[in-house]
Amino acid sequence: MEDSKPIQQPSSTRQIVVLRWGHRPQRDVRLTTHVALTARALCASGFILSDTEDPHIQETVNKITKSWGGTFHFEMGTPWKRAVREWKAKGGIVVHLTAYGENIQTSDILNRIKALNKDLLLIVGSQKVPGEFYSDQISDFNVSIGNQPHSECSALAIFLDRFFEGKELAAGFDKAKIEIIPQERGKKTKVYDE
Amino acid sequence: MEDSKPIQQPSSTRQIVVLRWGHRPQRDVRLTTHVALTARALCASGFILSDTEDPHIQETVNKITKSWGGTFHFEMGTPWKRAVREWKAKGGIVVHLTAYGENIQTSDILNRIKALNKDLLLIVGSQKVPGEFYSDQISDFNVSIGNQPHSECSALAIFLDRFFEGKELAAGFDKAKIEIIPQERGKKTKVYDE
Repeated sequence: MEDSKPIQQPSSTRQIVVLRWGHRPQRDVRLTTHVALTARALCASGFILSDTEDPHIQETVNKITKSWGGTFHFEMGTPWKRAVREWKAKGGIVVHLTAYGENIQTSDILNRIKALNKDLLLIVGSQKVPGEFYSDQISDFNVSIGNQPHSECSALAIFLDRFFEGKELAAGFDKAKIEIIPQERGKKTKVYDE
Repeated sequence: MEDSKPIQQPSSTRQIVVLRWGHRPQRDVRLTTHVALTARALCASGFILSDTEDPHIQETVNKITKSWGGTFHFEMGTPWKRAVREWKAKGGIVVHLTAYGENIQTSDILNRIKALNKDLLLIVGSQKVPGEFYSDQISDFNVSIGNQPHSECSALAIFLDRFFEGKELAAGFDKAKIEIIPQERGKKTKVYDE
């Protein structure tokens, strides 16, 4: 009884799902995997690989979820327009992460998003996203994580860290088979019985 | 005279250089490029691709710096042990980002690092870093950005965002040829004459 399960992810009233647009199989496999794992580790509830399929990524992400716990929805191949339409039909809002949007540091955009208290579909793209992404037909907000070119992976990480106010990094994951015990030096894990 | 240059990056008393260990040419090219661009965009002052060379990454990063401004040192091929030894000899400290370290959210590790007020070499690795990285011969601190597996790119981004307290995302870059003007919709840039 000593090795009790870790506490569950803090329940949030808001659900965040990440939609990754523009993935190129082969070339982007590691990067998109990192984007998906970032979404999971930082307490998003799901990931949509839009408009294409990549079973390697699905396999990696589902394997991580199975070992490290929590509930994380993974889907792929969904056309981005349909995902956006269905999200909005359910009352959710769409946030597009782009270097061109309103700066999360110098504007009040994060407060405006939070004030709506709605589920978020977070679109992360690549350099060449369709112009429509910026329009109010698609994105309720265009948010920049700084206005320098860097990485959709980093942008997603900082958005989630700020949105959840850091609490996501302290979260335990339900049904974890393995858990890290943080320490000053070395590597320590705890393995739970089924 | 209307298009004056943007303000310079805020000068920090502390210099941060990112050392990327375990890069595999080809397979990791996009991911490592994103790690380097994150370092630059979030106001680290340089990047060391240790123990290997990848001229494609060097070219991409230097091209971005030339267009988007600032001073960003890029080097590659340096053996990691030498980089660490030389860094310490100059009085700097070494921080290793790893899922196994002290949690940046639940511990006081960031305050302890900042209190030293020294230059930082930030080591970002991959899953299989040498065990030595955890020892006090190498790392003064092992820091985890949450204790779930995710991404060195995300971990670096959150570390820098918290270290610089968000100010890095508002920084202007000296000698920029192009700059984004953040806005609610669409893409707007300003191009500066030489």
